[in-house]
Amino acid sequence: MSGVLYVIGLGPGNERQITPEAREAIAKSSHFFGYKPYVERLQLRADQTAVPSDNREELDRAGAALTLAAEGKTVAVVSGGDPGIFAMASAVCEAIDTGPEAWKTVALRVVPGVTAMLALAAKVGAPLGADFCTISLSDNLKPWNIIEKRLRLAAEAEFSIAIYNPISKARPWQLDKAFNILREILPGEIPVVIGQAIGRPNEAIVVTTLEKVRAQQANMASTLLIGTRLWRVISIYNAPCVVYAPRSVPGGEK
Amino acid sequence: MSGVLYVIGLGPGNERQITPEAREAIAKSSHFFGYKPYVERLQLRADQTAVPSDNREELDRAGAALTLAAEGKTVAVVSGGDPGIFAMASAVCEAIDTGPEAWKTVALRVVPGVTAMLALAAKVGAPLGADFCTISLSDNLKPWNIIEKRLRLAAEAEFSIAIYNPISKARPWQLDKAFNILREILPGEIPVVIGQAIGRPNEAIVVTTLEKVRAQQANMASTLLIGTRLWRVISIYNAPCVVYAPRSVPGGEK
Repeated sequence: MSGVLYVIGLGPGNERQITPEAREAIAKSSHFFGYKPYVERLQLRADQTAVPSDNREELDRAGAALTLAAEGKTVAVVSGGDPGIFAMASAVCEAIDTGPEAWKTVALRVVPGVTAMLALAAKVGAPLGADFCTISLSDNLKPWNIIEKRLRLAAEAEFSIAIYNPISKARPWQLDKAFNILREILPGEIPVVIGQAIGRPNEAIVVTTLEKVRAQQANMASTLLIGTRLWRVISIYNAPCVVYAPRSVPGGEK
Repeated sequence: MSGVLYVIGLGPGNERQITPEAREAIAKSSHFFGYKPYVERLQLRADQTAVPSDNREELDRAGAALTLAAEGKTVAVVSGGDPGIFAMASAVCEAIDTGPEAWKTVALRVVPGVTAMLALAAKVGAPLGADFCTISLSDNLKPWNIIEKRLRLAAEAEFSIAIYNPISKARPWQLDKAFNILREILPGEIPVVIGQAIGRPNEAIVVTTLEKVRAQQANMASTLLIGTRLWRVISIYNAPCVVYAPRSVPGGEK
């Protein structure tokens, strides 16, 4: 009898942002696959087995998890944030699509979570309160020219832009290149928010502008939010600032 | 002494998708503002007061909540899903920005949640696993021509498209118009997912195509996911189908 594969979102890193549904799926699973830092966030019982792996081994990891699940085990693949946003759910689906027929017998259960851009946006106000797009800057699996095209069209569409996977040792120049592309279309004064480790002890958030921002302010754990001409940065008494995207676009009030 | 205003995301509707952080914020608050169906989802104590209101009264609702909080109360404004995605956080920030100085003394705490598109995506696989954009089809506060422009540019960018606020009694024609705009650019066979009441007893999900989809299949509680040429719909044994956006874009494999 075939088993179950949970693909679980652990949220951005704060224990209090893990849903009860995710907790239940963790409690039911016997084997845990995932990128090492995420697997290490689990407090597993003695009868549960962690199978951590390096980053960029998603398809192998998905296959190993599906093989165990096809044998009848209840298996978990864990991601930070939401598993469907630049994370393991797509790799698991691809493995099911292209792998052995037995993997199609597994009961697939994707458990959503609070993805990084939502947690970061909440910390600063409501910068994603109007139309936006979400782009991974990783060109490991897609051509860089597609990313450039999407950045240009997103800026022309006046979308707020959430950027995932902004930079890594293997991808050192892409983020500054992306800023330069956006600067060709957008004014330098639009706000940019950089966040990492949201909700964790080492949380760091910077609010700057498109003119001033530099790639060295981000790392592979950062999420960025690029504003529009309409974003507002306001001063309040109990926080460094509040950043929000107004609900209204000029000309639209009825 | 000024109080606290929580802006809380209740998730898509399933109790098990409400984060512990949201539960704690609810437990600490004395007054609850929000659109009636969301406030009714709360199981309040006898010492807690619900102040439900109609939809489309966001700014008044935000102001009333801020007034109480500025008087020292711990107040909650609740939204379904995530409060930062086409929900109350932006209206609260706008009220703080444009309202009396006393409202700027309130401690603002936005509590993120699982937004509808993430819950829907998880139910069908991983359709948001690649670059995507999120568009509200409501032209109550933005001009319709901006929405049309964004749909066209999103299709040209080959973004998956999540659509919020697709249709309502006051906005009956916009969704079919949006489908027609997308049909001018995208092939008719690309997948479209329509979901409502995700995780609730009356959950309903339809997987169709851009060619076949009609506005009458959606209502004001629906979220839609429009695919790209790369989306895959596959058959497995324990679900109607799995829909996913591949991680790879042709030409990008290294």
